[in-house]
Amino acid sequence: MENNKHSRDYANSNSVGGDEGDAWGVHENNTKSGPAWMPVDRYASEYNMKHKKRGMAVIFNHETFTNQTLKPRAGTNVDAENLANCLKKLHFSVEICKDYMFKEIHAKIEKLAKADHTDEDCILIAILSHGEFGSIYARDQNYNLDSIWSFFTADRCPTLAGKPKLFFIQACQGDRLDGGVTLLQRTETDSGSVSSMSYRIPTHADFLIAYSTIPGFYSWRNTTKGSWFIQSLCSELATSGTKYDLLTLLTFVCQRVALDFESNTPDCEAMHQQKQIPCITTMLTRILRFQEK
Amino acid sequence: MENNKHSRDYANSNSVGGDEGDAWGVHENNTKSGPAWMPVDRYASEYNMKHKKRGMAVIFNHETFTNQTLKPRAGTNVDAENLANCLKKLHFSVEICKDYMFKEIHAKIEKLAKADHTDEDCILIAILSHGEFGSIYARDQNYNLDSIWSFFTADRCPTLAGKPKLFFIQACQGDRLDGGVTLLQRTETDSGSVSSMSYRIPTHADFLIAYSTIPGFYSWRNTTKGSWFIQSLCSELATSGTKYDLLTLLTFVCQRVALDFESNTPDCEAMHQQKQIPCITTMLTRILRFQEK
Repeated sequence: MENNKHSRDYANSNSVGGDEGDAWGVHENNTKSGPAWMPVDRYASEYNMKHKKRGMAVIFNHETFTNQTLKPRAGTNVDAENLANCLKKLHFSVEICKDYMFKEIHAKIEKLAKADHTDEDCILIAILSHGEFGSIYARDQNYNLDSIWSFFTADRCPTLAGKPKLFFIQACQGDRLDGGVTLLQRTETDSGSVSSMSYRIPTHADFLIAYSTIPGFYSWRNTTKGSWFIQSLCSELATSGTKYDLLTLLTFVCQRVALDFESNTPDCEAMHQQKQIPCITTMLTRILRFQEK
Repeated sequence: MENNKHSRDYANSNSVGGDEGDAWGVHENNTKSGPAWMPVDRYASEYNMKHKKRGMAVIFNHETFTNQTLKPRAGTNVDAENLANCLKKLHFSVEICKDYMFKEIHAKIEKLAKADHTDEDCILIAILSHGEFGSIYARDQNYNLDSIWSFFTADRCPTLAGKPKLFFIQACQGDRLDGGVTLLQRTETDSGSVSSMSYRIPTHADFLIAYSTIPGFYSWRNTTKGSWFIQSLCSELATSGTKYDLLTLLTFVCQRVALDFESNTPDCEAMHQQKQIPCITTMLTRILRFQEK
């Protein structure tokens, strides 16, 4: 990949036109936070992964539960060991937390978020457990994933500001099943050879949903130049649309929105100088590149 | 990027141990769907973007609304034109649908999903509108994004099976504001030069959440070899952990889970031969690569 070499064109358009939100109604007060140290140059295309240490990797491994209707999760120790070994080879400091109660998880996360990660590249948290729509099970009760990752926002955990915060969740999100679809190879000869070359895919594979903002949050639009997200998306598509794969392009779209824009509503202090980050959800199974036709 | 050249080691582990779900409770009946044509070889690392046509790109552009409390979205026509031009240059057949009622959107989507996309690489749908948590506004009413993308699953839209289905949403997802955090450059000299080099980031930037399955769905675990997701994640981390960036790695994790696994529960027909696709949500702003230390 040529991402080390690429030069991208940036234009900060904050000062033209007015900024509006694409929400209906009122908003709660914002909070402006104190500064943190910069882990990487503003326009770097790659994260700085050259700190002294890679960082912590904590695996919450759940095998048994106090609620007897939750079956023991046979095979989870294989997962935990397998993952721990892989992460150690990538230089993470790995810790496995076995069958923690919710309070213990909460305390561990709070301690992690308060620790000094100055010399570390990133943080990784893996949760292996039962789950259902919107929640995951600790040994004694279920909880919402938001309650974990919100500890690590740049304001609450400044030594990880601007660094990757990675969450890997092995758990159900409901009880729906995906029956899949068989893909057959097109053949010029006979139909007998078709099925031998076929493979099955989940019906929900190959989707990508790029949202201008994260769930619960405001999305900004400049009344003259258009929304921050679409402006940024168009810039990347125009300059690098055939050069990079789509997930790389969208990473740079996130970078543009995150760094180049800040709301400009001097008449409304509560809305002024606010930031935005897009949210990309992908179920793609291959690299996607818009080659020239 | 070297993805054309890479060779990955695959092992199908369906036949060992039993498969269980990480959900609590019952499940609804699955539906097994008819076959579709294969757009690309099973183990291709890239999507096939060499069909005759790139595909349709439909932009739902919302400026005004029947509900008078929803302000006209000044600047949205700039977005729509800008996006249309970028997508045309990438060989999409672009159509802008201006201020559609929900019924019109629904009819358009239904028609799109029923069309024959055999000679097309992919499909792209962009929605520019007001939004709130969980829903987006048509001219006359709000609706849920799920009601749009569910038309294009591989079972309902077989000529797009195995092809990328791309959704770009410019809309609020609530009224929370992100006050951001300032990143300061560390300096050996004096503190006066610090702020001139600083930049601000959204507090919610730089997160990645990799879920083993999509919202509402079952997540499978082999009782001997571990869960499909963690097995696949570990395979990719072990073989390519320092070679590819994380989003590329996770794309290949999705490919492994989607193609190499199928549930094996012959005693329970309703659970048998089911598929799974992980769901990756990223707010990363730079390329992430676990280089050797």
